[in-house]
Amino acid sequence: MTIENLSSNKSFDGWHKQYRHQSDSLGCAMRFAIYLPPQVSNGQRVPVLYWLSGLTCTDENFMNKAGAHRVAAELGIAIVAPDTSPRGEDIPDDDSYDLGQGAGFYVNASESPWNQHYHMYDYVLNELPALIESVFPVTDQRSIAGHSMGGHGALVLALRNSDRYQSVSAFSPISNPVNCPWGKKAFTAYLGKDTSRWADYDASMLLRESRRFVPALVDQGDADNFLTEQLHPEALMTAAEITNYPLELNFRQGYDHSYYFISSFIESHLRFHQKHLFKE
Amino acid sequence: MTIENLSSNKSFDGWHKQYRHQSDSLGCAMRFAIYLPPQVSNGQRVPVLYWLSGLTCTDENFMNKAGAHRVAAELGIAIVAPDTSPRGEDIPDDDSYDLGQGAGFYVNASESPWNQHYHMYDYVLNELPALIESVFPVTDQRSIAGHSMGGHGALVLALRNSDRYQSVSAFSPISNPVNCPWGKKAFTAYLGKDTSRWADYDASMLLRESRRFVPALVDQGDADNFLTEQLHPEALMTAAEITNYPLELNFRQGYDHSYYFISSFIESHLRFHQKHLFKE
Repeated sequence: MTIENLSSNKSFDGWHKQYRHQSDSLGCAMRFAIYLPPQVSNGQRVPVLYWLSGLTCTDENFMNKAGAHRVAAELGIAIVAPDTSPRGEDIPDDDSYDLGQGAGFYVNASESPWNQHYHMYDYVLNELPALIESVFPVTDQRSIAGHSMGGHGALVLALRNSDRYQSVSAFSPISNPVNCPWGKKAFTAYLGKDTSRWADYDASMLLRESRRFVPALVDQGDADNFLTEQLHPEALMTAAEITNYPLELNFRQGYDHSYYFISSFIESHLRFHQKHLFKE
Repeated sequence: MTIENLSSNKSFDGWHKQYRHQSDSLGCAMRFAIYLPPQVSNGQRVPVLYWLSGLTCTDENFMNKAGAHRVAAELGIAIVAPDTSPRGEDIPDDDSYDLGQGAGFYVNASESPWNQHYHMYDYVLNELPALIESVFPVTDQRSIAGHSMGGHGALVLALRNSDRYQSVSAFSPISNPVNCPWGKKAFTAYLGKDTSRWADYDASMLLRESRRFVPALVDQGDADNFLTEQLHPEALMTAAEITNYPLELNFRQGYDHSYYFISSFIESHLRFHQKHLFKE
């Protein structure tokens, strides 16, 4: 496994770095970013929070805008931010912002032309952590978080793989994609018209079936433009009530869908993950 | 004076807002951003930190990337970020990134074709604070800070107007523009070839002449790509030694020219300004 370092910036006594590597699961070169807290300079191994971004994002949005390095440096947590889809001139794409490159939806696509490269579920679940844990001074303690499409991805990955993640959190997640325009469009393209195959990628449906609980925290702004049509946190809440799932869902008055919302509450998310990442 | 609200985002219990207004000093429509801390919702008037950005930036870079809202919210300081030049299709421009739109250098241009619109010095010193203080719940206590070209602007404005600013700070400022490629190019275009007219816009030269001291803080990364050729903090340091100026200049090991550097130390700059903004 060879990876190429593209950039390094010192940040809060730790390091923000971007890398490129050839991904087997996606069949293309992929870029990711990692924040390594200062503790690794003392030879310490640190746990990892995987951050999944939303539509149109790359590895850069969260690292640039969330203000997370300060808290990660204090707590001794590494953060890994992958891209949001396979990328490249040879990779299938769509003119709209909510399908194709920048909009992988963290699924394994079964339908042509997407099925050859769009395997973000496998990439985030298996290939990327294997790479990270072989190259960087990290432990195998992982948590996962994300925003919007990435909040959907984080919840789905954690709910289906409770043995792999210590905790999960999401900002403004697409909580019930089988019932919203973004989800219906993407799942029809990537997974096909048979909606019975969509349930594996719907957090609210998965939560109704879950037996092993991964501690979960969700924050949702009540001034979010996408709240009513696309996000449906009430589906998540109803499912959690039915299964008695330990989900903390906070509605935040006046906050919207932007990174200003994320940066306002990222500290509480990192401290939530810390509790679970450093458990004996 | 009419101003148009373009956007509002709740952030750390306060508000980030963008506005457009017609600028008399620049002869064009200008956009600026303001962060209003939560204290203003309780009817409190708050002091203002003006932030001047670097080459190619707009009002957005600092607000998105610096992580300053958290501390400004705690301390009760408003932050105003203007654009870095006049803008628009009718405004003179240059193909290079370091002259024309996005590169106003905070001077009043005397040379054609720049002299009609490029009056960022007047805009930041007079027009913008008058507007801010007439529209928003702020006091007339002002401090000023900036990065790179904006660090140059902040130092020049404060050193020439010690009665207008309580304190000044800069990250990686262009400290001696008359002696670096960026400064020579911009000053030749905006101010003409007679270099004797450049001294009014050179922080190191102004600092040698200063009689009334504005408390000043400068942070400079020692891994900054532009350090040797463009920034010349040693000129500032020498000038401060000659005049016994109370300048705190910190070299930060391993930090570069990016916003990762700014975000790592913005808290210390805001706390520095707080000490001076809230003095009786």
